[in-house]
Amino acid sequence: MADVARTAGVSVGTVSHVLNHPDRVREATRLRVLGAIDQLGFVRNSNASFLAAGENRTIGLIVIDIGNSLFVDIARGAQHRVGHETMSLLLANSDNDDALQDRHLDFFNSARLAGVLLAPMRDPHLALDRARRLGTAVVVLNYRSQHDDHCSVLIDNEEAGYLAGRHLIELGRRRLAFVGGRDELQPVHDRRTGVRRAVAESPGTTLVELATENLEAPDGDQAGEQIADQPAATRPDGVIAVTDLLGMAIIQAIGRHGLSVPGDVAVMGCDYNSNAWGGTIPLTSVRMRGQDMGRAGVDLLLEELSAGDDHEHRDVVLRPSLVARESTVGRSGT
Amino acid sequence: MADVARTAGVSVGTVSHVLNHPDRVREATRLRVLGAIDQLGFVRNSNASFLAAGENRTIGLIVIDIGNSLFVDIARGAQHRVGHETMSLLLANSDNDDALQDRHLDFFNSARLAGVLLAPMRDPHLALDRARRLGTAVVVLNYRSQHDDHCSVLIDNEEAGYLAGRHLIELGRRRLAFVGGRDELQPVHDRRTGVRRAVAESPGTTLVELATENLEAPDGDQAGEQIADQPAATRPDGVIAVTDLLGMAIIQAIGRHGLSVPGDVAVMGCDYNSNAWGGTIPLTSVRMRGQDMGRAGVDLLLEELSAGDDHEHRDVVLRPSLVARESTVGRSGT
Repeated sequence: MADVARTAGVSVGTVSHVLNHPDRVREATRLRVLGAIDQLGFVRNSNASFLAAGENRTIGLIVIDIGNSLFVDIARGAQHRVGHETMSLLLANSDNDDALQDRHLDFFNSARLAGVLLAPMRDPHLALDRARRLGTAVVVLNYRSQHDDHCSVLIDNEEAGYLAGRHLIELGRRRLAFVGGRDELQPVHDRRTGVRRAVAESPGTTLVELATENLEAPDGDQAGEQIADQPAATRPDGVIAVTDLLGMAIIQAIGRHGLSVPGDVAVMGCDYNSNAWGGTIPLTSVRMRGQDMGRAGVDLLLEELSAGDDHEHRDVVLRPSLVARESTVGRSGT
Repeated sequence: MADVARTAGVSVGTVSHVLNHPDRVREATRLRVLGAIDQLGFVRNSNASFLAAGENRTIGLIVIDIGNSLFVDIARGAQHRVGHETMSLLLANSDNDDALQDRHLDFFNSARLAGVLLAPMRDPHLALDRARRLGTAVVVLNYRSQHDDHCSVLIDNEEAGYLAGRHLIELGRRRLAFVGGRDELQPVHDRRTGVRRAVAESPGTTLVELATENLEAPDGDQAGEQIADQPAATRPDGVIAVTDLLGMAIIQAIGRHGLSVPGDVAVMGCDYNSNAWGGTIPLTSVRMRGQDMGRAGVDLLLEELSAGDDHEHRDVVLRPSLVARESTVGRSGT
């Protein structure tokens, strides 16, 4: 760190800020420090540091929330593709925190990993920009970015919402409710759009949308109370929760009011999160193909690393599939 | 790497072997190379490499199988304790492979992390020895070692088996079956011992033990077939599977034969693995308190790092608890 500070002509504290809190540093300073890191980094690299061989065979994976089994599935798929023989995979959990995500990315950059798979919450353009300056290849997972300067692996969340809506409509449900969080979260926005499309295609079907603050159990509990409190004639008879965690909490809240699932209200989740499946009634959900996402991410990254300058970025889009369980089809359907 | 080879007076290939395949190198050579790494490593460290500050705030966690939610829970607990502000956690999955575990450990050693939490499959003595020579503090999770030269966090697996046995006996089941894998796996051995204790305490209760090759779904399927094929008078009426993955497969196999769960046969798992809960009938299991294990591991590691030479190694032992669901208590009990 002292070497970088000397080379860049700044204090050690400034170098630390560039690495940990780039927003607190002027752009010109930031570029000077990144330049110095680049310079010293390459020196270190060309010295054939005893670390280099090991590092270059390691891929980093940064996920939003390891408590959501989608990301565990992504990690399992990536691990599977990476194999055991010559490469390894390191996993970092950003735990819904952009600053932590950037710290992980900086660590992977500084450890000179072969490349990084990044599942971000928001547009990762600044983070990608920083990684690229340090020479790290990044493939973005599970986020549709406005930029085309990187490869992505996506799951079609609009299709996930559409499949959920169609499923309940085909079961004869006509008063649907969509329980979702803030629309600026891409999966929430896209799944909601898909549900709306399914409802729009089916005359006589209505849709109410219940907004929740977050996507956790307390939010589902509150939404479930709101649904159960309504008179039978207007109460939703089919509920799509944007996450399985919300769905399980809704089932519990509805059950407390003496209503039956799926008899009175069919309930389903939408993100195939096995960490939400501990309840009494197995939950219908939409399988998000996390393992395929992890595998495809490793493939794109290796493609990019081996192609060099000839590489052309591309997106891989996976299609979700519905998994019907007791919470919508009852005991007989299983 | 070239510097290390020069210092140790060996080839670069030998250095690589020491790091990646220590078994292929003579002990004297191994010690010489580790000595050289130590020496250069400390030089590098005292040079205040620009990486040092970041690395020293990072803890590594190596788990056996990220597809088992116990390890995801451990990671979540550790992440929670580590927090977001000043430290971070990196996760590596050894995927049931000792060689991969050692590669991860070597990477964490060479990246000079603050310390490592290691959940090993077998006695990690050699791996710990190597890590210590490189100056890395290691806390062992979920494995009862013969050595007392490190701190450990353990879950009482014997108690888990005992709780499972007691649960079925209290429900009136008298012909128990234990379905488990190879006894050299510590959790299998300990849970089996606990089940035997519960049965021994209850006169008139019998126990058959079905050995399986592995702990995966196909093994459970085979065991389920074996159970269902027996005449009703001698067929087990209560089954304890050593893992939830086995338990779910047993339920499916029994169901195919027209037997009811829990009516004809109560079935339970023993490791609270939410990744096994996708089936029709919610599975009774024993909660292994992974999050508490992760938190306690971080606490012990930080204790060791701050105490320095005054540190005394100790073990923390957590007690499991039973979670009753439909697969043993039926619909009414939920």
